[in-house]
Amino acid sequence: MGSTVNELQAEVDRLHHKLQSIAVQHELATQDGDLITVSDYLLTRLEQLGVTSIFGLPGDFNMRDGNQDYIEDNPRIKWVGNCNELNAAYAADGYARVKENSVGVVVTTFGVGELSAINGIAGAFSEMVPVLHIVGVPSTLQLKTRPLLHHTLGDGRFDAYTKAAQQVTLANTSLMTKVNAPAEIDRVLHECITHSRPVYLTLPFDLVGEKVPAKHLKVPLLRAPPPNDPEVEAYVLDEIIKLVKEAGQDVVILVDACTIRHGVRDEVLDLVNKTQYPVYAAPMGKTAVSEQHDCYGGIYMGTLSDPRVKDRVEKAKLILSIGALKSDFNTGMFTYRIPPSHTIELHSDHTLVRYAQFPGIGMKLLLPKLTGRLEEYRRGASRLIVPHYKPVVPQEADNRISHAYLWPRVGEFFKEKDVIVAETGTSSYGLFDIPLPDKAIFLSQILYGSIGWTVGSVLGAAIAARERLLGRVILFVGDGSLQLTAQELSTMIRTGVTPIIFVINNEGYNVERRLHGMYRKYNDIATWCYTSLLTAFGDVDGTASKSYTVRDKASLDRLLLDPEFARADKIQLVEVIMDKYDSPRTLEAGSAISMLKSSQ
Amino acid sequence: MGSTVNELQAEVDRLHHKLQSIAVQHELATQDGDLITVSDYLLTRLEQLGVTSIFGLPGDFNMRDGNQDYIEDNPRIKWVGNCNELNAAYAADGYARVKENSVGVVVTTFGVGELSAINGIAGAFSEMVPVLHIVGVPSTLQLKTRPLLHHTLGDGRFDAYTKAAQQVTLANTSLMTKVNAPAEIDRVLHECITHSRPVYLTLPFDLVGEKVPAKHLKVPLLRAPPPNDPEVEAYVLDEIIKLVKEAGQDVVILVDACTIRHGVRDEVLDLVNKTQYPVYAAPMGKTAVSEQHDCYGGIYMGTLSDPRVKDRVEKAKLILSIGALKSDFNTGMFTYRIPPSHTIELHSDHTLVRYAQFPGIGMKLLLPKLTGRLEEYRRGASRLIVPHYKPVVPQEADNRISHAYLWPRVGEFFKEKDVIVAETGTSSYGLFDIPLPDKAIFLSQILYGSIGWTVGSVLGAAIAARERLLGRVILFVGDGSLQLTAQELSTMIRTGVTPIIFVINNEGYNVERRLHGMYRKYNDIATWCYTSLLTAFGDVDGTASKSYTVRDKASLDRLLLDPEFARADKIQLVEVIMDKYDSPRTLEAGSAISMLKSSQ
Repeated sequence: MGSTVNELQAEVDRLHHKLQSIAVQHELATQDGDLITVSDYLLTRLEQLGVTSIFGLPGDFNMRDGNQDYIEDNPRIKWVGNCNELNAAYAADGYARVKENSVGVVVTTFGVGELSAINGIAGAFSEMVPVLHIVGVPSTLQLKTRPLLHHTLGDGRFDAYTKAAQQVTLANTSLMTKVNAPAEIDRVLHECITHSRPVYLTLPFDLVGEKVPAKHLKVPLLRAPPPNDPEVEAYVLDEIIKLVKEAGQDVVILVDACTIRHGVRDEVLDLVNKTQYPVYAAPMGKTAVSEQHDCYGGIYMGTLSDPRVKDRVEKAKLILSIGALKSDFNTGMFTYRIPPSHTIELHSDHTLVRYAQFPGIGMKLLLPKLTGRLEEYRRGASRLIVPHYKPVVPQEADNRISHAYLWPRVGEFFKEKDVIVAETGTSSYGLFDIPLPDKAIFLSQILYGSIGWTVGSVLGAAIAARERLLGRVILFVGDGSLQLTAQELSTMIRTGVTPIIFVINNEGYNVERRLHGMYRKYNDIATWCYTSLLTAFGDVDGTASKSYTVRDKASLDRLLLDPEFARADKIQLVEVIMDKYDSPRTLEAGSAISMLKSSQ
Repeated sequence: MGSTVNELQAEVDRLHHKLQSIAVQHELATQDGDLITVSDYLLTRLEQLGVTSIFGLPGDFNMRDGNQDYIEDNPRIKWVGNCNELNAAYAADGYARVKENSVGVVVTTFGVGELSAINGIAGAFSEMVPVLHIVGVPSTLQLKTRPLLHHTLGDGRFDAYTKAAQQVTLANTSLMTKVNAPAEIDRVLHECITHSRPVYLTLPFDLVGEKVPAKHLKVPLLRAPPPNDPEVEAYVLDEIIKLVKEAGQDVVILVDACTIRHGVRDEVLDLVNKTQYPVYAAPMGKTAVSEQHDCYGGIYMGTLSDPRVKDRVEKAKLILSIGALKSDFNTGMFTYRIPPSHTIELHSDHTLVRYAQFPGIGMKLLLPKLTGRLEEYRRGASRLIVPHYKPVVPQEADNRISHAYLWPRVGEFFKEKDVIVAETGTSSYGLFDIPLPDKAIFLSQILYGSIGWTVGSVLGAAIAARERLLGRVILFVGDGSLQLTAQELSTMIRTGVTPIIFVINNEGYNVERRLHGMYRKYNDIATWCYTSLLTAFGDVDGTASKSYTVRDKASLDRLLLDPEFARADKIQLVEVIMDKYDSPRTLEAGSAISMLKSSQ
């Protein structure tokens, strides 16, 4: 039944799309209504989705006939020129994550630009982030005659780049005529926002200024998920309630990545408030529910969890899992001990009740009904006290900054509404089980794990945070990771965002050392003068930034207590000198498990 | 006939390959002969091809079970750890270009690493550079069971990255068993060296240490081109001689990209020496024949050529074009005025005589025979005096450094055996028609034109130049281009290579301004402190590098005359302050033509 509804919905979408193309042809033929350029049509759609900044680099195919000009001239959208395309894609990803209910947009040029960005797009696919990749390409005539142009592979395969892009995007369109341009733009954007995955659009430079009817813009793009089949949904609700009753009071909610990505934070908060069930989060679900909520118990990641958290989650009679994404790094290297017989899983497009699958029953519409039913059932039941996991800053005789010390200590520095960004590896493992303040946002690329991602991403995150009036943006990145994408610090200076950047200087790829080659030279990196970077990258007179090196606990402590530092009204970089072979506890345990598993 | 030979040759190759797999199975079963690990098999093949440096980054899938360890432990191959994967791919490309008759090798990890490198690989494909891309991937078991691992797209499509790679590589192999590993390694390397294009190889971490027979390594990989059909070849030679006779003395040789890429420099030099025909070069053929050769006349690029060069080439009765690659930027925006009726084109795998095509007749084997025939015919004929184009350093009243001044002036600074690398755009257009000293090598990515390429490429070029005992490596790069890939300066410092890096500081994307948006903000970039980069990127105490800013002709002149500077025994960066809107003559003319054409 569920899949029938989905099939019908898809057919409805197809017919709408066809009708829109025919309408455009008719309107152009009869000159019915206002016209707008293809470029402005696209920009207006993006405005409607809340986009206020676009990332990327100019290139001749995306400038010609003015696509870049249309962006620069748009009074409501700002062009953010990046240093390179990979960083631009990362920035669009970071922007989309913090902006929420909007999309990240990156503009690149044919071949050389788009392929440089593709790893950033793949990361957005993997991690389910809505990003639109606009690529300026040769003219429609050149795409047909395929001359030996620069930026091509030299063998006439003008579609090679699009074929590569198809591997890492949910939907794509290669615009070739103005007639279907509005419908195609709407189609890919609709896919992008409903499925929260990247899409790809090529724009030949001679189409940029072509005129299309504006009136379709009056109908906003729908973000609503496809409806659940009412009969199946009712059955699922009954089944869930039955299991909840059987479990007595012993129900635990486990939130994960898709709670954030598929926009059900509010629905989940309502569920938690009304049921008062203890709620735990997987690493990718961190901050999906406030980590200061009375019902919040901590981060669950299998055997890597704090033992109290592990015990509570694994011993619950029933687990209500919301938006799970059970990747290796998100599950303590596949060490969950939660039997399916005790589990209900809610997903964006299906539901699992123990072993029974219900395709087409999505959580966005199911959750409010479930909350309604559970609220009634829970009414009058006493509230459980959820033990609140709180790491303690250890007292160590040694004054060197250890991982055991660093992460709980910076945990005390965070404030409400801060956006905390952790690079994959040492930084993310260090922060996973540090509870963050209310309304804080935690960003990390835990599934895809492309090192260097945070540096580009922080730029986009900081621009979105400024627009949303959130708090400070605080980045933790290792020296090795920073070196991949360091130049984007320059764009931060240029755009006036003021993140605090903690650079963990431990002389190389710490997470890789943990995995293999602890004493190998290939895990060493060049020694940079990190505190010179901000001036070299654009704060030429040293007034727009501040850089620090901290080598011991006392100086770290002093800095964190300095109100001027904490105010973060200019961009600041803190080099934290740490031992080459020290790691966070979770990383040490995790890599041991990982090695064990891979040798099996 | 030609294609029949090729088809048979392909069948022979296939059968060899099959036999080799069967032989391995047999040898493993009977324990016949010495065994070697898959990793060492691959490294030994690379050693045989003259590889002494490998570029890349570690990552868990390429380190596990030791692939990185095998590389680090190899006494004849050096691991060069790069800052990021795109730069590593560029470095492998630059290495292959300067090393000649070898291959560039780049090692990355599954997904995140390989996709970051893909634009560099695409550039090598477009420009015909032999590069091997080795990707460390999950275990053979994981590739079959496809668990939700980090670095994946999260949907079980473990082959998505390989599919993307297939778009930009000539051949690829996904090793899944040791049985065919030697044959597959040999196959892709054979394709790489014979066709001078990149190939792609995935290495699951559990295969790295598996043992295979070593004895196949005794048979070196063949680099020989497929034989020309003797009957067709004889006919072609007769046809060419006929046209040469008709043209009297009026024959001009035009060398282009494939003269270098397909290794016929020596054959062409022999042809020039023995015929004494005037020889001109397309931009991509620059330095294929020494620019100090008596017969050398200059660079031909259609209407962008110096008028004397243009006149001489276009008025010749017969053009012998060798290894042509007629892309937009290589032909003065498609402005060749050479009628096919006056042209013979020699290519790596076919020949054109006027309008007649001869597939399968390749130049490597044809050229010596042609030289033999022409030598005999020319004997006794008087040598033509070829007017040698030499740009003059202009006398300008203004002391600012103009493009009209800069390029001829640095032309006087170059020495024999220097490797001169020009970024696409302003720098390459500035250097095209500056004649270089004997044995100098000119590198530029003229067809693919990915800005930022030179910075990674110079690293590889400098390492290869050091191995080949060539002269200095001198880079010209714009500020905008440098910002894409700047961190690779760090790897130069770390590896001890000492290029001279001229950074044209003209506040943004000059070539893009020429094409569109002269006064647009999107062509502006951040203001960096370029002279701080080398210290920030690793020369922490300032002893390993030197940086300069030159703002006027006098100080540039002084610097170029300083013997210590010219010695280039440490890495040096020269920031050249230039006017934001000034450009080289050829670029101004070229962009005007380009704009005209695209609006047609």
